[in-house]
Amino acid sequence: MKLPVLRNFPAGSLDDAMVRALEEAAARCRRNAVTMVTLADSGHPAGSLSSTEMYLTVYGVADLTPENCSGLDRDYVSVSHGHTSPGAYAALAEWGFFPAMEAIAHFRRCGSPFQGHVERDVPGIDWGSGNLGQGLSAGVGFALAQKARGNGKRTYVLMGDGGQTKGQSAEARRIAVKENLANITALVDWNNIQISGTLETVMPADIPALWKADGWNVLECDGHSFRELYAALRLSASCDRPTVILCRTVMGRGVSFMENTPEFHGKAPRTELYVQAMKELGGDPSLLDEARKLRESAPVPAGRHVEPARADLDLGEPVTYGTDKKTDNRSAFGTALADIGEKNYESEGRTPLLVFDCDLAGSVKTGDFAKKCPDWFIQAGIQEHSTATAAGAASTAGVVSLWADFGVFGLSEAYNQQRLNDINSANLKTVLTHVGLDVGEDGKTHQAIDYVGLLRNTFGWKLVVPGDPNQTDRATRWALGEAGCVCIAMGRSKLGVLADEKGDPLFGGEYRFRYGEAVRVRPGKDGAIFALGAMTERAVKARDILRENHGMEVAVYCVSSPLVPDDEALREAAGTGRILTCEDHSVNSGMGSILAARMTELGLSASFRAVGVHTYGESGSSPDVISAMGLDEVSLAKVFESLPGK
Amino acid sequence: MKLPVLRNFPAGSLDDAMVRALEEAAARCRRNAVTMVTLADSGHPAGSLSSTEMYLTVYGVADLTPENCSGLDRDYVSVSHGHTSPGAYAALAEWGFFPAMEAIAHFRRCGSPFQGHVERDVPGIDWGSGNLGQGLSAGVGFALAQKARGNGKRTYVLMGDGGQTKGQSAEARRIAVKENLANITALVDWNNIQISGTLETVMPADIPALWKADGWNVLECDGHSFRELYAALRLSASCDRPTVILCRTVMGRGVSFMENTPEFHGKAPRTELYVQAMKELGGDPSLLDEARKLRESAPVPAGRHVEPARADLDLGEPVTYGTDKKTDNRSAFGTALADIGEKNYESEGRTPLLVFDCDLAGSVKTGDFAKKCPDWFIQAGIQEHSTATAAGAASTAGVVSLWADFGVFGLSEAYNQQRLNDINSANLKTVLTHVGLDVGEDGKTHQAIDYVGLLRNTFGWKLVVPGDPNQTDRATRWALGEAGCVCIAMGRSKLGVLADEKGDPLFGGEYRFRYGEAVRVRPGKDGAIFALGAMTERAVKARDILRENHGMEVAVYCVSSPLVPDDEALREAAGTGRILTCEDHSVNSGMGSILAARMTELGLSASFRAVGVHTYGESGSSPDVISAMGLDEVSLAKVFESLPGK
Repeated sequence: MKLPVLRNFPAGSLDDAMVRALEEAAARCRRNAVTMVTLADSGHPAGSLSSTEMYLTVYGVADLTPENCSGLDRDYVSVSHGHTSPGAYAALAEWGFFPAMEAIAHFRRCGSPFQGHVERDVPGIDWGSGNLGQGLSAGVGFALAQKARGNGKRTYVLMGDGGQTKGQSAEARRIAVKENLANITALVDWNNIQISGTLETVMPADIPALWKADGWNVLECDGHSFRELYAALRLSASCDRPTVILCRTVMGRGVSFMENTPEFHGKAPRTELYVQAMKELGGDPSLLDEARKLRESAPVPAGRHVEPARADLDLGEPVTYGTDKKTDNRSAFGTALADIGEKNYESEGRTPLLVFDCDLAGSVKTGDFAKKCPDWFIQAGIQEHSTATAAGAASTAGVVSLWADFGVFGLSEAYNQQRLNDINSANLKTVLTHVGLDVGEDGKTHQAIDYVGLLRNTFGWKLVVPGDPNQTDRATRWALGEAGCVCIAMGRSKLGVLADEKGDPLFGGEYRFRYGEAVRVRPGKDGAIFALGAMTERAVKARDILRENHGMEVAVYCVSSPLVPDDEALREAAGTGRILTCEDHSVNSGMGSILAARMTELGLSASFRAVGVHTYGESGSSPDVISAMGLDEVSLAKVFESLPGK
Repeated sequence: MKLPVLRNFPAGSLDDAMVRALEEAAARCRRNAVTMVTLADSGHPAGSLSSTEMYLTVYGVADLTPENCSGLDRDYVSVSHGHTSPGAYAALAEWGFFPAMEAIAHFRRCGSPFQGHVERDVPGIDWGSGNLGQGLSAGVGFALAQKARGNGKRTYVLMGDGGQTKGQSAEARRIAVKENLANITALVDWNNIQISGTLETVMPADIPALWKADGWNVLECDGHSFRELYAALRLSASCDRPTVILCRTVMGRGVSFMENTPEFHGKAPRTELYVQAMKELGGDPSLLDEARKLRESAPVPAGRHVEPARADLDLGEPVTYGTDKKTDNRSAFGTALADIGEKNYESEGRTPLLVFDCDLAGSVKTGDFAKKCPDWFIQAGIQEHSTATAAGAASTAGVVSLWADFGVFGLSEAYNQQRLNDINSANLKTVLTHVGLDVGEDGKTHQAIDYVGLLRNTFGWKLVVPGDPNQTDRATRWALGEAGCVCIAMGRSKLGVLADEKGDPLFGGEYRFRYGEAVRVRPGKDGAIFALGAMTERAVKARDILRENHGMEVAVYCVSSPLVPDDEALREAAGTGRILTCEDHSVNSGMGSILAARMTELGLSASFRAVGVHTYGESGSSPDVISAMGLDEVSLAKVFESLPGK
């Protein structure tokens, strides 16, 4: 049985034959969804039944097919209520993305792409979700990418009603309106039931009023009527602003004991209840046994392998800052970014580079880029959660995204969004400024002393903490050419340019950034200091003090890839018998703890001491705050002296 | 010059003398605010001038005085736009909280309580803020605590307009309406300017519509008119629902070159500009020199020392689960919580215990508590950011708060809110369920494999990962009696009760939970396994395999306080020559890395291997997912075998 093709919005409404075919497909979807949940004895049946017609219509209308779904210039679908995955899988199977039986048999089975919450490993799924409130932001990211690519394509977002109260959704609504994303249509499965009861009892919200207050075009329809859904989708395509379709639905639709009750939100119908459900849905309960046999005998299907996108950008030539002048890493980053922007903006065939800002462009130095590449600059307001997700999703849809923000906003505040970007194989560059204690006088709420500790939890994020403006320039160019999520973190202050022993710029000339390399800035046989990023300047000064006062020759290493211990450097340093690590980062979770743990793994021993931030910091000038924490060169030298030698 | 007393809402409007005195105070405040910013050469003058009358009126009206400000049964004031601290400090000084000159001279100076963003060290400041969007949630927490204490007191929240777009604020609005918090009044400084320009250019938002959509009573007034502010505050006090007062103000009010421009949002007026500002504000620029002398000569003032509140709760008697039956830690927690709730609810003089839920009570096992203590149960909906802050703030205002949620929602999603709770010396208990790989079939977006890695960034949070239901029961009772922020993390599955070598419950009978202790479950001379929480059961089985297959005697330690290495246990284990750590947590950031780093610090050596989660996990049953990650007992035994001995 072949479904009618709804794509490209044929004029007029659906004819009777189409509607009949869709209704039959919907019944099949419901049976398949219920069966997969029962077989796995786990999952969310009632919401899947509620969203069935929405899924079928959206995947039918969208220019998203088994053939084009791994490409870029096509429609995107973001599923926000990822727990209704049985509904999504069933509908995708109807539209030919994979055989329905694959999803039924291998749902929620270890190693299968058909995870409990939708993931990109399944063809047709554009964003892995399940943590509620993310889907609209992801959709905004897709729509921004489509706009930047100028391909005239559209984004659809399917959402539950319980997640409407997540603040992040409101942020996404505003970005969509501000950026004139007429190419986005959201659909809300408005069944009025969430896990703990009705919306009214759990958390009342006037859903139409919320969307209207943010300026969306609001439509309502019967979410179980293909004709109404189709008409609303047609209408939304011709609207000059973002549209939401509030779909009135029935939780558990089609299975009497699931209808209008929260009980089967996340519970499988077993034995007699399964049989009853299948009967009510016009199907044969033997489907379960058939699927069970397959689950027990067949290997799990492989799923689609999703990799971070590679970009086509001219990364320009590195700039070398001389040792005669101080420059802040922020400005070095901003200059490199504007240079790259200029080289690619309006150049044929380049990947668009979207730079996101949360009302801090002046401080994070993306203002020059904004002037040179106005159409690539997205002002997203003070809305970090949605910005993180939108920027991440855009980076999977044919643009490179870069989001620059203060450390506490770009990562501490948006940590989960950045974790989900990683899970979604995004290609996002996050530039964190004002990290460590080097935030000026803003005080402890603004000191990002956890960025190493946060990103070391993830498996994909690369983290670069440049030692000086020259390394910042090179790391920026490297990051924009590197596939995957990369974070570059830097403080606020102007820094001296790091010099080699001859006095030439250490990271100038032919130096190219290599991820994972700890650069030995000074040699030494009496011990070694590992310094995180811009702390290197102080470590070199501490070394000079130790030489002057004690005649010690202490090696200094600049660690700019703290998540990846440089084993060779560590072995070399351990050979000196004494190791000090220093960082303006929480000493509990930062570079020092990573190096110390690695030493145990490698079986290396040496007198060891990690110094760093050991309590929430003061509000004062950066040098004062650094000193108060015992991280100035004199304190470093003193701690080093106290380490017993070989 | 003494200010008239506005407290307790005297009938009628302000008389002329009062208004004159307030206007003089406002002029002083403006001069003091500008002077402190100029002296520190850092800070936010224009927003401070914009909020001056709001600060003066609110602190004048609130039942919050230098005398009662460290007590509990009084009005609370939450400042959301914490960067306008000069305005807050200047107003507090007018109302006698401290001499104005203290704030002027020591603003943004290392060691001073007068940080760049408001902190609780300053008397009159109830919540440290600056990360925008938190203040209304904190205010909701205070108002909930006041309601639970039944003291008839009121909460005021001062907010900027730029932060109105943060989604967290919308979440807080909904909680306030649902909980009928008629005792909260919010004031928005609606000057229409944020850092990058006007609200309309940065991120348009229909501010009145947003508040109305969420059901608040919305008033508007001239935010520079004491009469209008006072009348609006009076009106809000008699309203039967939460009220917001949208205060029309002028950015930089009173200083011509600052008015209606974003330029001085975060910049100090220097030299001639300072002199001009003082002239326009009717003051003498010599104030700057006077303050500078003090800054250079006087020690920084000490500030107020804020400690987490201690609670008065009957913690009941521990329950011992027998070894004959499996129980999940979640149920053991829920049973203990309901027991404690029942013992204290409706008992005279007990500290109220508020339990917060985000639509997951059934899964996180707070349903029994909700039934037994309905007035202490807060259903906050799917709004984790606001819930985290509200629960944290409530816990500083005379209640104990407990928030139970899935690991990814209670911590990964709300990490920054939990960091700020710690900075604010909150007394919040966060119970994370479904942590590690033990989430059932929900898949990678729902696997909290980062909770150790997240909390090790902080300095105050204590983290407990109980080994079995008995330890969970005892840890729950301990946590509710322990001052400060405590997190208890547990998986989803039913577990066997851990037994000692005689077969009796290991954590039964007289055992009491001691934070920081790694309990040796089995002795051994040929090596040691450290297991995180519920992984202990598998470690003991791996030990049995090693004994059976190789005749090895391997010690097993149950680590339930992973943030605090037990040095004694570590020394003892290192003496055996071989250490294996195992956890269903990211191996990059978890217990293994903490123990490995500690070994280097202590100069201990042994063959060492940490096993844990090394990639995002699969979606399957917990045992399948654990096995797929190489964390079942057979895999553990195999890895142990591969460790070279002494």
